[in-house]
Amino acid sequence: MAAAVEFYFDFSSPYGYLAAQRIDEVVEEYGREVAWKPFLLGALFKTTGSQPLLDIPLKGDYARRDLARSARRFDIPFVLPEAFPFMSVAACRATYWLGERDAEDAKELAAALFDAAFGAGQSISRPEEVAEIAAELGHDEDQVRAAVQDQRIKDLLRREVDAAIAKGVFGSPYIIVDGEPFWGFDRLDDVALWLDTGGW
Amino acid sequence: MAAAVEFYFDFSSPYGYLAAQRIDEVVEEYGREVAWKPFLLGALFKTTGSQPLLDIPLKGDYARRDLARSARRFDIPFVLPEAFPFMSVAACRATYWLGERDAEDAKELAAALFDAAFGAGQSISRPEEVAEIAAELGHDEDQVRAAVQDQRIKDLLRREVDAAIAKGVFGSPYIIVDGEPFWGFDRLDDVALWLDTGGW
Repeated sequence: MAAAVEFYFDFSSPYGYLAAQRIDEVVEEYGREVAWKPFLLGALFKTTGSQPLLDIPLKGDYARRDLARSARRFDIPFVLPEAFPFMSVAACRATYWLGERDAEDAKELAAALFDAAFGAGQSISRPEEVAEIAAELGHDEDQVRAAVQDQRIKDLLRREVDAAIAKGVFGSPYIIVDGEPFWGFDRLDDVALWLDTGGW
Repeated sequence: MAAAVEFYFDFSSPYGYLAAQRIDEVVEEYGREVAWKPFLLGALFKTTGSQPLLDIPLKGDYARRDLARSARRFDIPFVLPEAFPFMSVAACRATYWLGERDAEDAKELAAALFDAAFGAGQSISRPEEVAEIAAELGHDEDQVRAAVQDQRIKDLLRREVDAAIAKGVFGSPYIIVDGEPFWGFDRLDDVALWLDTGGW
C-alpha cells in the first residue's frame, strides 16, 4: 500500500483546523490514508521571520475575513477562540502519547481538540482542558494529564517537531504527498489533483 | 453594467503574472470586465513587515517549486528572470500613461511586459526596455520613454499606489469583486464562485 499522506498542522492554526475538516475525505477518495502530524509552528517563526498571521497589519484583517468566508464556503463551523493564538504544546503531547498506542485514537483526539478550539471557541491550551476532552472520548483523564508532563513524551514531541523542520515544513497546514509539499488550506484541490494524476 | 473586477498586481510578482494569464478568462465567463491595476508592492513591505517572498528562508524554496508547479498545471510558460525581484516602477508608469487614453491598450502592454519578464525571462526594469516592448505594440518609443520620466505620470502612479493601499491591498495578486477582497493566485476559484453566486 502507498505511504500515508502527511498532514502537518499546529493546533493553534485556524487554516490547519479548516484543512483538518476536509483532508481525510479528499485523500481517501484516492484510496490513501492520512497521517496527522501536529507540530509547533512557533519554533519556525524565527527562521522564516514570520509572526502569527492574525497579528500582521492588513494581512491579519484579511485573514479574519478569509477564514470566516472559507468556513462558510464548506459549511464548517468556525469561531476564533478568545485567547488566540494559544499554546498548543499540551494538545500536541497528548496526541503523540495516544498515537504510540493507536493512530486512529490519536486522530480522533486531535479532531476533537480542533473542534473544541475553532468549532466551539474553547481554550485547549491547558493540560487539564486537553485531558477533559480526552476523557470525553473514553481515555483516562489522570493518565493524559500525567502524559503531558512526562519527560519521555516531551522528548517525543521535540523529535517530531525537529523531524518536521528537517522535512522543510514551515507553515500550517502543510501536506506532503509522495515527497511533494503543499502549503495551505487553499492547496487541497492541488493535493487531490496530484493524487489523481500522480503529479504533473 | 456591473463595476469591473479590480485586479491589483506588482509587475515583479510571479504569482501576479500567473493570475494575469487567467483572470480575464475567469471573470469574463460571468459577463464582467477586469480593470488591471499595477502597483508597487515594496511600498507595503514596511507595513506588513514582509519581504520579497523568494528571499524568505524555507518559504522561498517552497515558492519556487510551487510557482513552477502552478504554471505547469495551467500550461503557462514560466521562468524566473535572472534579476529578481526587479524594479517595476517604469512598467507601472508606462501602463498608467497608456491607460489615460485607452484601457485596452494599457492592458495589452501590461500583459506583454509580464510575458517578457516571466514568460521569456527578460529584464523589464529599465525605461528603455519598457519602451521597446511598447514599440513592438505600435506605440512611439520616444513618447513612452518621456512619459516614464514625466512628473505628471509619476504623480499619477503615486496616487494609484496610495489608492490601492487605502483599499487595503497588501499583496499581489489582489482581486476585489464588488468590495470583496481575494488575495493570491490560488483564490481564482473563489473569485469565480463569488461571481457565480453573488457571495456566500
